[in-house]
Amino acid sequence: MALKRVKGGVCAPKGFQGGAVSCGIKDPGDPRPDLALIYSEHPCVSAGTFTTNRVKAAPIKVSQAHLRSRELRAIVANSGNANACTGVPGIEDARTMAKSVATALGLRQREIGVCSTGVIGLPLPMDRVLPGLDSLPGNLSSRGGGEVARAIMTSDTTLKEIAISTTIGGKKIHIGACAKGAGMICPSMATMLCFVTTDANISKACLQKSLLEAVEGSFNRICIDGDMSTNDTVLVLANGQAGGKPIARRSKACREFSEALQHVLLELAKACVRDGERVSKFVTLEVRGASVYLDAKKVAEAIAKSALVKSSWNGGDPNWGRIIHAIGYSRARIREELIDISYNGKPACEGGLMAKTPIKALRDIAGRDSFTITVDLHLGKADYTIYTSDISPEYIDFNRSEYAYWKNAGMG
Amino acid sequence: MALKRVKGGVCAPKGFQGGAVSCGIKDPGDPRPDLALIYSEHPCVSAGTFTTNRVKAAPIKVSQAHLRSRELRAIVANSGNANACTGVPGIEDARTMAKSVATALGLRQREIGVCSTGVIGLPLPMDRVLPGLDSLPGNLSSRGGGEVARAIMTSDTTLKEIAISTTIGGKKIHIGACAKGAGMICPSMATMLCFVTTDANISKACLQKSLLEAVEGSFNRICIDGDMSTNDTVLVLANGQAGGKPIARRSKACREFSEALQHVLLELAKACVRDGERVSKFVTLEVRGASVYLDAKKVAEAIAKSALVKSSWNGGDPNWGRIIHAIGYSRARIREELIDISYNGKPACEGGLMAKTPIKALRDIAGRDSFTITVDLHLGKADYTIYTSDISPEYIDFNRSEYAYWKNAGMG
Repeated sequence: MALKRVKGGVCAPKGFQGGAVSCGIKDPGDPRPDLALIYSEHPCVSAGTFTTNRVKAAPIKVSQAHLRSRELRAIVANSGNANACTGVPGIEDARTMAKSVATALGLRQREIGVCSTGVIGLPLPMDRVLPGLDSLPGNLSSRGGGEVARAIMTSDTTLKEIAISTTIGGKKIHIGACAKGAGMICPSMATMLCFVTTDANISKACLQKSLLEAVEGSFNRICIDGDMSTNDTVLVLANGQAGGKPIARRSKACREFSEALQHVLLELAKACVRDGERVSKFVTLEVRGASVYLDAKKVAEAIAKSALVKSSWNGGDPNWGRIIHAIGYSRARIREELIDISYNGKPACEGGLMAKTPIKALRDIAGRDSFTITVDLHLGKADYTIYTSDISPEYIDFNRSEYAYWKNAGMG
Repeated sequence: MALKRVKGGVCAPKGFQGGAVSCGIKDPGDPRPDLALIYSEHPCVSAGTFTTNRVKAAPIKVSQAHLRSRELRAIVANSGNANACTGVPGIEDARTMAKSVATALGLRQREIGVCSTGVIGLPLPMDRVLPGLDSLPGNLSSRGGGEVARAIMTSDTTLKEIAISTTIGGKKIHIGACAKGAGMICPSMATMLCFVTTDANISKACLQKSLLEAVEGSFNRICIDGDMSTNDTVLVLANGQAGGKPIARRSKACREFSEALQHVLLELAKACVRDGERVSKFVTLEVRGASVYLDAKKVAEAIAKSALVKSSWNGGDPNWGRIIHAIGYSRARIREELIDISYNGKPACEGGLMAKTPIKALRDIAGRDSFTITVDLHLGKADYTIYTSDISPEYIDFNRSEYAYWKNAGMG
């Protein structure tokens, strides 16, 4: 199955429109777009995955309820405010966002997905959001994918969108997607915001299964700071405009769709790591040879979350001692004397001991912007890969204070 | 039971001597002491707790074996090299340290505890350690407590020692202790290096029980970076020179000893947090009202390990939104709408929502060097307190590279 990159982001698939406006949610003077809308001209099947954080933002609760009762056909999303820890008024505000868009588009309120991202604990400034909601549907266009991707950015420094075309079951289909996320990123079910559109004619069952598989193989495999957000959401809308017979769950076509979707989401997930808040390294961390899958995952996550390991990556230091110490406290079954650790295939640690590779060669690799660390536990056949980053002095500095948000909200 | 501070550290109790020499383990040119010895003139009962990391340094394996077969009567410890991930030669080196000291003191090898702290993965430079071991016993003195405390420092910037006297069962007893540790610190059984001496006449059973309780209430309650070392050890020697009948396990005297020991260890544990590598805040984190103890602990640890929460502490930002997001992913049972969060007793979040305290008042508190955050889950009666720190740009910078060690070891 050949995948071809195409332009247009979430508007690349047939029958989708996107648009965005600026409401000044973060700061009344900020001209950047912060309210986005994705709309399908045709009915859709839809699926979503959401954060497993037990503190869930209001829009998560609203979108989950909508998704349970109806197929979504549009998504409204804002950046600059998470609408989390905002109580019943927060739920009302999320519903107002859905209702306003539904009315303008002639849809039911429950056909709208709602998402927010930004600071936690502040009420949405509805005096500024409401006028934005009014003008939003008028900004829809079939070339609005980039605007949508731009409007959901918060601390992101790069716009993250992708679209591909491929042929499944003899029909040419498109998948478009955009994402935001550069902090509060940790492996777990669903991560940050990601919106996916497709014109594939697909059954609900195949769509749901493909989404779960694709998220497990992409967003659940990345780690920046080990923090899991209250707002993480991935939503997918499929409007069937590519034609053909619907892709059924247990079919070759469904497997192909799942693979294509995972490719799209993995590209976005990696882009999120590369854009990690003020970090400088992209590390592919492969754990092999674990007794069981869960042990491979525990080892990968312990390494990817270790402040000391991440600091050494920042310094370009091939510090396998810190890696093995994290392996040791991961709670996975290990045998110290069997552990191998390599950088881009060059051994740093063999059988739990320093390998013979000259430090200079390892430093050359760890000094690069991007490298692969492979840990082999030599106990079994289970493996797990995570895409992660260093932690930098600049990350801490960047995250020291959100006071500006509170000040702009008149709370300072 | 009144505790009185006294001088002398590990040499404050009767019949203990301490001493240290400089071997240049980190760097041949470094004149600072890096090899220390504690010796009891009389037989002891002894107890220890060790890291639960599954990668254990060679001296841990040796000390555990010694403690199982004999009562320890002396402790030899080096800084600058962890002797971890060094295989069978590392075990031999740790045994050589014990044997050398035992021969000089006329003890059996198994009466010696051995500890190391420093970089992981490099063999001990025995060519420099052996001459140090030879001269070490000659440096013992009854006023050597401070020298011992100084010799075990690595990235520590302050010397950590304490001694107290108190009266138990009508006898005046002393407890002296020193500790090192400023990084790789995380709540879990035993943490960093800590050596305790006492002249109390105490049964082995009471000593072991008291140590476990005291460690649980002190070193297991601190968190700097969430990393758990391969070398963490707490050893306690009790030589009975205070006289009186031995303190039995189930006695009022044993409870009193346990309390006094916990006081000593908690002071050292807090000193470790205050000396956390290049950090600037001391945060007392109280979690109350959990359904069960384990949930209170999960919540406290999730908050204390969150990079985003710790970054906000560094910035003096009373960011309760990040605290509640960490509570949400802690896997503890919670109800968002019941959660209260306060800074020094001033509410920041009430019932899961922003409280009415002016941000300025909260910023005044979070801007201080030391403050208390109280989380009340309002579900039950279980509580848990952790002493923790911020994470700073300087911490990352400080931990970027250990290359200098490798270079000094001729591996660069």
